[in-house]
Amino acid sequence: MSNSLSNGDEESLTHPLLNHFLRRSPSNTTSQVAIVGANVCPIESLDYEIIENDFFKQDWRSHSKIQICQYIFMKWTLCFLIGLIVGLIGFFNNLAVENIAGLKFVKTSNMMLANKYWVAFLVFSVSNFVLTLFASLITAFISPEAAGSGIPEVKAYLNGVDAPGIFSLRTLVVKIAGSISAVSSSLLVGKAGPLVHTGACVAAIMGQGGSKKYRLTWRWLKFFKNDRDRRDLVTCGSAAGIAAAFRAPVGGVLFALEEMASWWRGALLWRAFFTAAVVAFVLRALIEVCLSGKCGLFGTGGLIMFDVTSTNVTYHLGDVPSVLLLGVIGGILGSAYNFLLERVLRIYNLIYKKGTAYKILLACFISIFTSCLLFGLPWLASCQSCPTDASEPCPTIGRSGNYKKFQCPPGHYNDLASLIFNTNDDAIKNLFSKNTDSEFQISSMLIFFFACFFLSILSYGIVAPAGLFVPVIVTGASYGRFVGMLIGSHSNLNHGLYAVLGSASLLGGSMRMTVSLCVIILELTNNLLLLPLIMLVLLVSKTVADAFNGNIYDLIMKLKGFPYLEAHAEPYMRQLTVGDVVTGPLQILHGIVKVSNIVHVLETTRHNGFPVIDEPPHSETPVLFGLILRAHLITLLKKKAFLVTPVRAGVDAFNQFSAEDFAKKGLGNGDNMEEIELTNEEMEMFIDLHPFTNTSPYTVVETMSLAKALTLFRDVGLRHLLVISKISNRSPVVGILTRHDFMPEHVLGLHPLLVSSRWKRLRFPFPRLLKIF
Amino acid sequence: MSNSLSNGDEESLTHPLLNHFLRRSPSNTTSQVAIVGANVCPIESLDYEIIENDFFKQDWRSHSKIQICQYIFMKWTLCFLIGLIVGLIGFFNNLAVENIAGLKFVKTSNMMLANKYWVAFLVFSVSNFVLTLFASLITAFISPEAAGSGIPEVKAYLNGVDAPGIFSLRTLVVKIAGSISAVSSSLLVGKAGPLVHTGACVAAIMGQGGSKKYRLTWRWLKFFKNDRDRRDLVTCGSAAGIAAAFRAPVGGVLFALEEMASWWRGALLWRAFFTAAVVAFVLRALIEVCLSGKCGLFGTGGLIMFDVTSTNVTYHLGDVPSVLLLGVIGGILGSAYNFLLERVLRIYNLIYKKGTAYKILLACFISIFTSCLLFGLPWLASCQSCPTDASEPCPTIGRSGNYKKFQCPPGHYNDLASLIFNTNDDAIKNLFSKNTDSEFQISSMLIFFFACFFLSILSYGIVAPAGLFVPVIVTGASYGRFVGMLIGSHSNLNHGLYAVLGSASLLGGSMRMTVSLCVIILELTNNLLLLPLIMLVLLVSKTVADAFNGNIYDLIMKLKGFPYLEAHAEPYMRQLTVGDVVTGPLQILHGIVKVSNIVHVLETTRHNGFPVIDEPPHSETPVLFGLILRAHLITLLKKKAFLVTPVRAGVDAFNQFSAEDFAKKGLGNGDNMEEIELTNEEMEMFIDLHPFTNTSPYTVVETMSLAKALTLFRDVGLRHLLVISKISNRSPVVGILTRHDFMPEHVLGLHPLLVSSRWKRLRFPFPRLLKIF
Repeated sequence: MSNSLSNGDEESLTHPLLNHFLRRSPSNTTSQVAIVGANVCPIESLDYEIIENDFFKQDWRSHSKIQICQYIFMKWTLCFLIGLIVGLIGFFNNLAVENIAGLKFVKTSNMMLANKYWVAFLVFSVSNFVLTLFASLITAFISPEAAGSGIPEVKAYLNGVDAPGIFSLRTLVVKIAGSISAVSSSLLVGKAGPLVHTGACVAAIMGQGGSKKYRLTWRWLKFFKNDRDRRDLVTCGSAAGIAAAFRAPVGGVLFALEEMASWWRGALLWRAFFTAAVVAFVLRALIEVCLSGKCGLFGTGGLIMFDVTSTNVTYHLGDVPSVLLLGVIGGILGSAYNFLLERVLRIYNLIYKKGTAYKILLACFISIFTSCLLFGLPWLASCQSCPTDASEPCPTIGRSGNYKKFQCPPGHYNDLASLIFNTNDDAIKNLFSKNTDSEFQISSMLIFFFACFFLSILSYGIVAPAGLFVPVIVTGASYGRFVGMLIGSHSNLNHGLYAVLGSASLLGGSMRMTVSLCVIILELTNNLLLLPLIMLVLLVSKTVADAFNGNIYDLIMKLKGFPYLEAHAEPYMRQLTVGDVVTGPLQILHGIVKVSNIVHVLETTRHNGFPVIDEPPHSETPVLFGLILRAHLITLLKKKAFLVTPVRAGVDAFNQFSAEDFAKKGLGNGDNMEEIELTNEEMEMFIDLHPFTNTSPYTVVETMSLAKALTLFRDVGLRHLLVISKISNRSPVVGILTRHDFMPEHVLGLHPLLVSSRWKRLRFPFPRLLKIF
Repeated sequence: MSNSLSNGDEESLTHPLLNHFLRRSPSNTTSQVAIVGANVCPIESLDYEIIENDFFKQDWRSHSKIQICQYIFMKWTLCFLIGLIVGLIGFFNNLAVENIAGLKFVKTSNMMLANKYWVAFLVFSVSNFVLTLFASLITAFISPEAAGSGIPEVKAYLNGVDAPGIFSLRTLVVKIAGSISAVSSSLLVGKAGPLVHTGACVAAIMGQGGSKKYRLTWRWLKFFKNDRDRRDLVTCGSAAGIAAAFRAPVGGVLFALEEMASWWRGALLWRAFFTAAVVAFVLRALIEVCLSGKCGLFGTGGLIMFDVTSTNVTYHLGDVPSVLLLGVIGGILGSAYNFLLERVLRIYNLIYKKGTAYKILLACFISIFTSCLLFGLPWLASCQSCPTDASEPCPTIGRSGNYKKFQCPPGHYNDLASLIFNTNDDAIKNLFSKNTDSEFQISSMLIFFFACFFLSILSYGIVAPAGLFVPVIVTGASYGRFVGMLIGSHSNLNHGLYAVLGSASLLGGSMRMTVSLCVIILELTNNLLLLPLIMLVLLVSKTVADAFNGNIYDLIMKLKGFPYLEAHAEPYMRQLTVGDVVTGPLQILHGIVKVSNIVHVLETTRHNGFPVIDEPPHSETPVLFGLILRAHLITLLKKKAFLVTPVRAGVDAFNQFSAEDFAKKGLGNGDNMEEIELTNEEMEMFIDLHPFTNTSPYTVVETMSLAKALTLFRDVGLRHLLVISKISNRSPVVGILTRHDFMPEHVLGLHPLLVSSRWKRLRFPFPRLLKIF
C-alpha cells in the first residue's frame, strides 16, 4: 500500500495504450536514474494554475499597457488564423475526398455498366487497398499519435493531460493526409474526429509559436507562455474542427463546450464563437467559388449539409410513441456499439503489441475485407425498376448519383448499391431525403445497417486517422429508416425523418451529448421544426445508454490510460480523507539548498513539484515556504545561479534571468537533465530557491474529504495540491496530491474494501446482459 | 482602513437599490445588537461548498441505495414539473396578452373606422392606464421584488447572492399577473425577462418544498437541503423561462448557460436541456389545441415564432460591408441604450426614495405619456394607398392586422399605425417579414425607431414587471429596417433580413451574449441559412459595445448593490495579497465554549461563520479545528445541546439532532435569535462545537495574491475562505474572506492608489464621448 510517488505526477507510461497506470513500488526507486536519461514519453500533466513567485510578479509588473493590448490583439488574431486555416483544411479535405472517392466510384460504375464485373472489383479493391496502405504507413511510421479520431486525446489535453506528440507538426500533416486517404478508401471511417484533432493541432502549434523541431518558429507568435492560454486556443481549434466538418459553427462551439472542455468561461465561449464564425465564412466563400463548377466532382453537396426537409414537417403528438421507441432502441444500440468497440480495441491492442508490421497487416486486412463486403453485398439485393418520375437519370451513368445500376438490367437499379457505392456523405443524404420513401427495400436497409454497424466498429481501431461521427450517423440513419419502414403507414412521419431521428438516437446513445448534438443535427438538416423530436429522441437514447456504460470517448480515454479527472467525485470519495490516499515518503527541499542536493533529487525522482521548507536556523520552526517546479529547478541549474555561501540572495539574483526562461516550453519539449554539466566545485555551492518558489500553492488540511479536495483540484485546474498537517508540531507538509491520486483505480487500489461498497455508480453491466441472451 | 467585518458577509443593505455596499466602521459595532432584532433584509450569501462535519458525515453514511435513487428520481421529476408549469404559464401569459391587448386594439380600431377619434383615444388611454395602474399597485404593495425584469436578481442568485424575497410565492403571483397587465397596457416592456424570473421562482419554490409562509409545503418535495441542488433547479427554471417566452428551447438552455449560470457542469446542461424540451412539448401541444380556433384572438402567431423567411435567403460576400456597418452602429446604439437606461434608473431611484405613492405616480405618468405618444405619432405619417396584391384585407377591419386605417381615407392605410397599433409581437413580425419591403415609409420607420428607443428606456424602471428583450428586439428591427431602406437597392438583402440583423445587433450591443442570442434569433426566425450573417453582426456589435460599457444586466446588478463575483479578477488584484484586504479584529470561538459566549457573539456580530480554534489545555498549541456557521450555532442553542462541564462530548450528542436540523432552510427564512430563551443556569453551561464544525474549510495562506484567492473562491463557489498565517507561532487564522472582500469597490476603498493605476480594464467612458458632441 505504500507509495513512493506522493509528490510526482510523472508515471512511467511507456505507451499510453492498454496501460492502466500502475504505481511504481518503492523498490523501483533505485532504477529511476536510468529512466530519467532514457527517451521515455511520459504523459505529462498541465498547469492551469497561476504560478506566483517573486520573479514572475516582478516580470508582470514591468508589462506596459501596450504589451497588454498586444497580448489581447494577438489572442484574437490567432483565433482568426485558426478559423481561417481550419476552414481551408476542412474545405480541402472535402474537396480531395469527393474527387478521389468520386473518381473511383465513377470508374468502377462505368466498368459495371460495361459488365466488366471482375475488373471493376479489382480496380475498386486495389484502389481502396493502396489508399488504406498509404494512410496506415504514414500513420505507423511517421506519427502513430495521428491514429484514431484524436478527440479523446484533445479532450484529455483540455483536462490537463498532455500525451506526448499529439500536437506536433508531424501529427498534423499525417492527420490531414491520412484522413483524406482513409476516408477515400471506402473504409467506414469519418472525417469529423480527425478534423477536430487537426483544428486542435493548428491551435496548439500556433499557440506555442511554431514547431521548434522543424525550426518553424515565429517570434511574434510567442506570446502565450502558459498552459492556460494554450488550452483556450486548443478549445477554439476543436470548435473550428466540428464547424468545418459539418458546416455547423454553433454546433462546433457547443461541442467544444459540452464534450471537449473541462474548464469553461464566458470569454472563451465568445472566442470559440468567433473562430467558428470565421470557419463558416471561409467555407461559404469557397463553396461559392465551387458552385461555378471549378472543383471537379465536388458539387454543391460536397460539404455536408443535408438540406433535405426544407418544406414544412408535419407531425403530431400521436407520433411520439414511435419516436420514443426509436430512442430506446437507439440507446441500447449505442451502448452496445460502445461496448463492442471497446472490446475490439482491446483485441487490436494485443495484436499491435507484436510490432508495427502487424498494424499495417491489420489495416490491409480490414481494407480487403471491406472491399469484398461492399462489392459483394449489393448482389444480395434484388433489382428495382426505375421510377418513372425520378428527379435524376435512372440508372445513374458516368457520375456518382442516386440510382446505381450495378448488376441490374437496363431500366433497373440496385438500391443497396446506391447506398454502398457512394461516399458516406451521399449515402446519408439519400437516407435523410424525404422523397425516397419508395426507393429502398426493407431487406436492403437491414443489410446496410448491419454492414455499417460492424464495419465501423472494425475500422475505427486501425492505424490511420478515423473518425466516429459519420459512421455513427450513417448507421443510425439506416437503422432509423428501417424502423420507419417497419412502422410504415401507421405514422405521419416520412422515412427520411425517421433516418434523421435514427441518427440522432445512435449519436445520443454512443456519444451522450445533448445540446451540441441537437444543434449539429439541426444545422445538418437545416430544419428547426424538427427540434422537439430531436430533443426527445436524444434525451431518451442518452438516458437508456447511460444505464449501461459510459460515453465512447471516455471509454477510449480509459483504454489509452489517460488520467482524466471527472468533474464529479465518486461517491466513496466522500468516505475518505486526503490523508488516506497520501502515503509514502515525501521529497522536500530547503529554502537554501546545496546544488548537489538538487541534482540528486532531480536524478533520483521523477516528481514535478517539490515543497520548499524553511527550517532552523533560517526560521524558528519548520515553515512551508512554497512549491517549486522541476522545470524551474532545471532552469536554475542551467543558468548556474549559484551562491558560495548559504545566505538569502537579494534581487541581484534576478539579473541573469528573463521571464522567458521560466515560461512554459512547447509541448513535448521535456526538460532535459543531460545538457547540464557541473563541476565538483559547483556541486558544493548553494542555490537560494526563495525568489523562484511559488509562494502560495493551494493547500488542504489532511482531514479534508477526498471528494472536497477533488472539487478544488478540478475546479481550479491544479497540478499539485499540498496537503498540510493539522497538528502544528509535525512537519508542515504531509504530502502532495496530483491527478493520479484522485483516479478511482488508484484510490480503490489503496482501499480495496470500497470496491464492493454500495457507494458506487449504478450501472447494468453489459457482459452480464449478453449472457442472458 | 480598518474593518470590523473581516469574518462576516452580512452587510446592512437596507434596500438593495442604489446602495453601494458600505463597510461599517468599528464604531458601529456597539449598535449592532439592535439591528439583529430588527426586521432588516440583508442580502445573504449562499453556500455552494460541501459542508463537512462529523454529524453530516454520519447522516450521509446512513443513506440507503433506495434513498439515493429516490433523490435522483426526484431531481428529474422536479425538472419535468418545472418544465410543465413554466410551459403552461408561458402559454397562459401569451394567451392573456393576445386577448386583452387584442380586444383593446380591435375596439379602438373600430372606433377609428367610425371616425370617433376622441372616444378611441379615451378608450385606448384609459384601458392602458387601468392596466398599468393594476400592475404597479400589486407590484408596489404586494411584492416590490417583482418589479423589473428579474434577470439580474436570478443571475445574482446563481452567483451566490440571495436578495430577500425574490423567490417567494407572492413574487411569483405578482410577476405573472403584473407582467400580463403591463405588457397588455401598450407599455414598451417585454415578457421574456419576467418569464425567466417566473421560471426561476417556480424552480426555487419547488426546490425548497413549497412556501412555508402560506403553509403550502409538501413533504415529498423536501429533498433538496442545500443551496447547490436548489441552484441547479433555478438554472433549469431560467432556461425554461426563455424557452417558454420565445419558443426557443435550445436558445433557453444556452441563455441559462451563457448569461445566467456562474457555475456549470455537464449534468446540469443535460437537465436544463430536458426541462426546455418539456417546455417545447407543452407549448406545441397547446398550440395544436389553439390552431382549431379555441383561443380567441390568440392565433397561430400568438407565441413568438417569426417564421418569416422560410424560402431560400440569398446573400453574397458583397453584402458583408453593409452587415458590418449594421453591427458597428448597433453596438454603439446598444451601449448608448445601456448607458441611458442606467442613468434613467438612477433618477427613478431618487424619485422612489420619496415613497410608494411616487412609484405609482411615475407609472401612471409613463402610461399616459406612452398612450399619448402612441396615439399621436401615427398622425405624423402620411397615408399610403393600399397595395392591390395585398395578402390580407387592406385596410384591416375588425381584427388586429397588417394594414391599419387609422385616420386615413378608405383604400389607404397608415404604415406607422400598423406598427404602433399592434402588439409588439405583431410589430416584430411585420418588420421581419420579407414581403413588406414596399409597405413602410422611411420616415415612419425613423419615427418608430426613436419612439421605441426612448419609450423602452423610460418604461423599464417603473414599478411593474418589465422585460428588456422584446423592446430591444423591436427597436433593433426598426433600426435595421431603416438602414436597409437607406441602402435600398445597393444590397441583395431584403428589408426583413435587415430588420432581423438590426435586432441581432442591438441585442448584441445591449446584452452582450453570443451563442445564446444567435440560437434564439435562429429559433425565432426559423432559418438556419442566416447563421453566418447573424454571427458576424453579433460579433461586431458586442465588440464595439464592450469598448464602452458593460452588459445591461451587470449594470442593473451593480445599481442594485448585489455583490456579484466576476469570473475574472481585476488586473490590480494580482498586485495585492489576501493579507492586504483582511484587516481588523477576528471573532473566533473555542472548541468547547460557554453558552453565554456564543449568545454574546451571535448578538454582537452579524458574521455568518466563525473559525473554531482549539487552545491549550485542549491542544498543545492553538490549532484551527474548523469553521462553524451561524445557522448551526442557532440550531445548537435552540436544541439546547448543553454540557455541564467543559469536556468533549461523544457521539451521544448526535441523538437529539436529525440532519433536517442542519439542512439549509428555505430562502428568506433567516435564522431568528429571538425565539431562543435561555435561563441563567443554561447560560453558564457549555457546548462542544466539534461534531458540528466543518472540519475542512478551504484555506489560503496570507501571502497568496487576491487574484488567485478569487479564482479559488469563485471556482469552488465558497462563502467563507479562511486566511491562515504563514508563521507558525502566530494565531493559526488571520481572517476570513467573504465575497465582499473581493468586490472592486471594497478593494479600491482600502487601496485608493490603485484607482489610478494602469492595471485597469480599458474602456472609453461614455459621458466623455457625449461631451465631444
